[in-house]
This record gives sequence, structure tokens and C-alpha cells, in this order.
Amino acid sequence: MTNVQASRPRIALVLGDPAGIGPELVARLLARAATRDAADVLLIANEAEVEAGMQVAGETFGYVCVDTPELARRFRNGVVLLRCGTRPEAGFRRGESSAEAGRYSLETLRAALDAVQAGIADAIVFAPLNKHSLHLAGMRTSDELHWFARQLAFEGPVCEFNVLGKLWTSRVTSHVALKDVAGLVTPEGVMQGIELLAAAIRASGVAAPRIAVCGLNPHNGDSGSFGREELDVIGPTVISARLRGLPVAGPFAADTVFLRVQGEHPAYDGVVTMYHDQGQIAMKLMGFSRGVTVQGGLPFPITTPAHGTAFDITGQGRADGSAMQMAFDLACRTSAARR
Amino acid sequence: MTNVQASRPRIALVLGDPAGIGPELVARLLARAATRDAADVLLIANEAEVEAGMQVAGETFGYVCVDTPELARRFRNGVVLLRCGTRPEAGFRRGESSAEAGRYSLETLRAALDAVQAGIADAIVFAPLNKHSLHLAGMRTSDELHWFARQLAFEGPVCEFNVLGKLWTSRVTSHVALKDVAGLVTPEGVMQGIELLAAAIRASGVAAPRIAVCGLNPHNGDSGSFGREELDVIGPTVISARLRGLPVAGPFAADTVFLRVQGEHPAYDGVVTMYHDQGQIAMKLMGFSRGVTVQGGLPFPITTPAHGTAFDITGQGRADGSAMQMAFDLACRTSAARR
Repeated sequence: MTNVQASRPRIALVLGDPAGIGPELVARLLARAATRDAADVLLIANEAEVEAGMQVAGETFGYVCVDTPELARRFRNGVVLLRCGTRPEAGFRRGESSAEAGRYSLETLRAALDAVQAGIADAIVFAPLNKHSLHLAGMRTSDELHWFARQLAFEGPVCEFNVLGKLWTSRVTSHVALKDVAGLVTPEGVMQGIELLAAAIRASGVAAPRIAVCGLNPHNGDSGSFGREELDVIGPTVISARLRGLPVAGPFAADTVFLRVQGEHPAYDGVVTMYHDQGQIAMKLMGFSRGVTVQGGLPFPITTPAHGTAFDITGQGRADGSAMQMAFDLACRTSAARR
Repeated sequence: MTNVQASRPRIALVLGDPAGIGPELVARLLARAATRDAADVLLIANEAEVEAGMQVAGETFGYVCVDTPELARRFRNGVVLLRCGTRPEAGFRRGESSAEAGRYSLETLRAALDAVQAGIADAIVFAPLNKHSLHLAGMRTSDELHWFARQLAFEGPVCEFNVLGKLWTSRVTSHVALKDVAGLVTPEGVMQGIELLAAAIRASGVAAPRIAVCGLNPHNGDSGSFGREELDVIGPTVISARLRGLPVAGPFAADTVFLRVQGEHPAYDGVVTMYHDQGQIAMKLMGFSRGVTVQGGLPFPITTPAHGTAFDITGQGRADGSAMQMAFDLACRTSAARR
């Protein structure tokens, strides 16, 4: 092994839901020489699905097939395909959710976790999953983030991050009803959102990340006229965080904070949002096709495109691979910074 | 009077809060020949403030001064300044809120309402107000929309609209705490948001507006997994509205609906949002300097720039007049369509 190879990260790559655009995105990603230069890839997939993805994408790449993680450990260079994942005899029905597709997704993700835990890979990148398929397949958690945490028996705080270029966002609440949001905005929750985000941005290679914190209410509650969370919870927590040495500012009114992080010279590296759509409305407008989701707080990097399985265009060969590429690049960058 | 003049609308124009960028914006607006071609203007202001605005803007325009509405009725052509509004002897303190500035704002707005009610003007355009100044001056309502309604003894439903180019948004809830939003999303409220918005877009000259309705919860509640308002309230109301012949679709997940209304060929003319920031995060990102607020539901058009008084740059001559121009143009367009 040369030095270059030894210093390259190895990324465990998973197709996501096989009924969606995942196999096509993976084919497109691995067909690029730049991808194969940036990292070694342990592709954990059913070979037939990999080939189907190449056919849809109209792009190909070479790989070595192995049947066990131990063999994958020995053959490291380039793209190694670790055969994994049960495929129905007739293949997966494209463009719809099913228990079979969900089981396939969970099986390959589980193998990816094993690979990282066994020291065979540094990080995981997966193509889009379908939550309905996962639930049909028996996933009990509300989302894949909490599934990962449970699989890893990880007890620490976790948080989904959304990343667009160099801008990161975290959420104090995520997949909960809007009516429950205000009750869940606690000093502990806000502090955790700040700390996890600061740690994640540092882990991606930014030494001193600057963090902005959103308010909860319109116009930041207008000095308590409509809502007091800025005065009673968020503001005091921002001050506490600053006393702990975290470079954080706010709360900022949510409808203008994203104007401060646009363009060439953003004022902040990260934004802590209070609820899902507060960040996602902005991030999707700012770059729908480039957003990356990070399963934050876990012991190693796990990234995925922020968009979904796009069942409506599955198999048509016109899926946009930008976000998949960004997810891969971020996993490489974070793996490198961790070394 | 020529025919052209007779068919032109007459716009009552108010400086907004005199401590902010309003006088500068008005000077910039009226210095443009295109503005004076599009409408006759009844400027309701203290003359010293008008002159101060010209000085800051470095731009001038000619006007005729009158002291009473009856004289304003007789002199219609071009810009007529109706002297109004008490100015402290030392002038207003720039860049800060005060009871004096609030009183001045309310006085000139009241005169503008009188002018429209007396048939001297067709619509009102005002430069940005400062809510704190208005409250210091004794305004009892939560915002200027409800102040207008009360002044007019108008009992019908009202709603603040935000307009960006040809895209309109309405809100089912507005200046309320986020914790109270879900409880206020009722079938009546959603239907009213749809109906008011459809009527307003029609009044602006679009014969058959296409309306999208937002959901409330992340991912539209994901079939009830996190929040049921889409299933129990919003969805059924969209169906009822369609049965009434309104061209409305939804509910759409709030984090992607604005992607459908971007660009050259938007899929909808209007979006009904459930709460303030759901629409405002998107609208400010899509065009902060061009947004217009419409005081919707009232018997005649009242428009204003969506941005604020910008106390931080008051008096510096660098305020961006785009939104003020858009507010003026929209008032002209709606006045013309009403005729």
C-alpha cells in the first residue's frame, strides 16, 4: 500500500431504498474518477442492484466482489463490493415502497455499521431511504437517526444536521407535531443543539465555528408580545453557551437569519433552528439539489442526500447526483479531519 | 383634464415612521418620472420631512402644497402635498422609536384613510412604520392591519398578504406565539385564508388565480405520524374550497411548496401559509428587497414595503427603494383593476 492510499478514508456506501433513485445515484457517483481518487469505497449491496443502477445511469465503474467483511478488509484499493442484501426473485418493484425494499435497506445499513465498528470503514454514506418501506420492514424508531443510535446502543444525544455547502443547521426539535414544538424548546434542548452543531462543524475541519441561534416566535416574539421563549429560554441559553466559550449569537428572528448566511461571506457557519421547517424551508430554497443530511452526534460520520427517493423519476436516468456527491465529499472531509 | 389623467389612479402616499428610511424612500420614488406617469399622488406629510427626505436621498421632485382635503380634491395633477402631521420643534430623533414619531405616523395614516373615504384617493401606500413607536403613541391593536380595520369600523375578515413580484401569500395566523398556532388553525381560518387570497389576487388583475395551501407539520405530518391537522383540518378544507369552485390544491409540505412557485413558470399564484414564518422565511429569501405587504380584506388597497424602518441606516442615503416602488406599483395595478 502506498502512503496516499493509507491516508485515504474508506467509505462504506449503501444504495438506500432499491426502489428509488439510489442505485442510479451510486452508479453516477462511482463512475467519476474524482470520487475514486478521494476515497476507497466499500460498496455494500446486492450485485444485481448495482448493475441495474449502472444501466439506468448509463455509466459504469469497475469493482472487486467479496463475500465476507474479512475479505473486504484484505482487498482495500478502489471499489470493493461486499455482497449483501436480499433481493426478491423478480427484483424490487420500482417507484413504490414495500417491506422487501425496507428489509434490504436495513440489512445493508446494518452491514455498514458492522464494517465501521470492525474498523473496515471510516464513515457511512447512504442513498435516500423510504421511511414507509422501513416501517413496513419493522423499523420501530421514528427515523433512521434513532435507528442508527439504537443499533449502536449509543446513549448520547443525537441530532439530524442539514448541510448546504459550508452552512450547517441543527434542530432542537425534529419530527414532531408543530403543536408540541414550544413545549420541547427547553434550555437543555437548545444547549444540546448548540453543542452538537459546534462539535460537528469542528469535526468537519472548521476550527472555530460561528453559530447563530433562531428564535421561536414571529419577530422573535417582539419583546414578549407574542411568545416568551426568546426571553425565558433561548436568550438565557445563548448567554450560558457563550459563558462556556461557545462562539454563539442570537436569538435571531427566523425570517431574516438565513439572509446572514447567504453568499460569499456568510456571517455564521451554523444555525441552530427550533423546529424542522424553520430550517428546511430555507435550506431547500437555498439549494434543494445540494443539501446533505448528517446523522449527528453518533460516534462516526454518517451522511446522505437531503432529498428523497424520488419514486416519480425512478429508472428514468435523470436523477441529479449533486447532493449524493456532496454527501460523499462531506463524509470524506470529516473522516480526514478525524484522523 | 385629459382622458389619461382621468383614468389614472390617485394614490395617497404617507412617509411612515419619520425617524426611519421612509422620507428617503418617498423622495426616491417620486423623483422617478415613471412613478409620476403611473398615478397622481396625494402626498400626506409634513413638508419639512418631505424636504429632509429629498436631502437624504439626494433626489428631488416638484409638488403643489395644499392645506385642506377640499383643496387637494381640486388640484389633482401630479404630486399634491397635503400638509399634515405634527413635527417636534427640534425635528424627530432619527433612528429611534418615540411617541412623537408614532403620533406623526398615525396622524398621517388617519388623514390618508379620510382621503380615500372622501373619494379623493383610490388607495394608500405607506413607507415602513415602527410598531414600538405606534404603541408608544397609544395604538392599542397588535398591528397596523387591525388598526386600519378599527379606524374604518370594518367588521369583515382581514389578513396580511405578502407579495413578491406576482406571487402572493396569506397567513391563517400571523402575530401570535408559535405555541398558539396549531389551536388557531381551524377550518374557518383556513377557508378564510384561501378566500381572501383568491379575492385579492383577482383584484390585482389575475382572473383565475391558482392557490396552494401549506400543511402545518413537518413532512405534512407524514400521514398523521407527527400531527393530524393536515388530515383533520387542512385537507378537508381544501376539498370544501374546491367544491366551492376555488382553484386550490394541497396541503403541501411547507419545506418544498416554495420550490413550486419559483422561477419563470410558477405552478401557483398564491400560497396560503399556516403561520408567519412559514411564509416569511421563504419570501425574504426569495427577494428580501422586493417584498410588499398588503393590508388584505379592507375595502380598498393599502400597501407597504415588507421591510422595516431600517433605523441602522437612516439618514445615510443608501436605503434600497425597490420594495417601495413595488408597493406603489401594486397599489396602482389594483386600483386600475378595481375601476
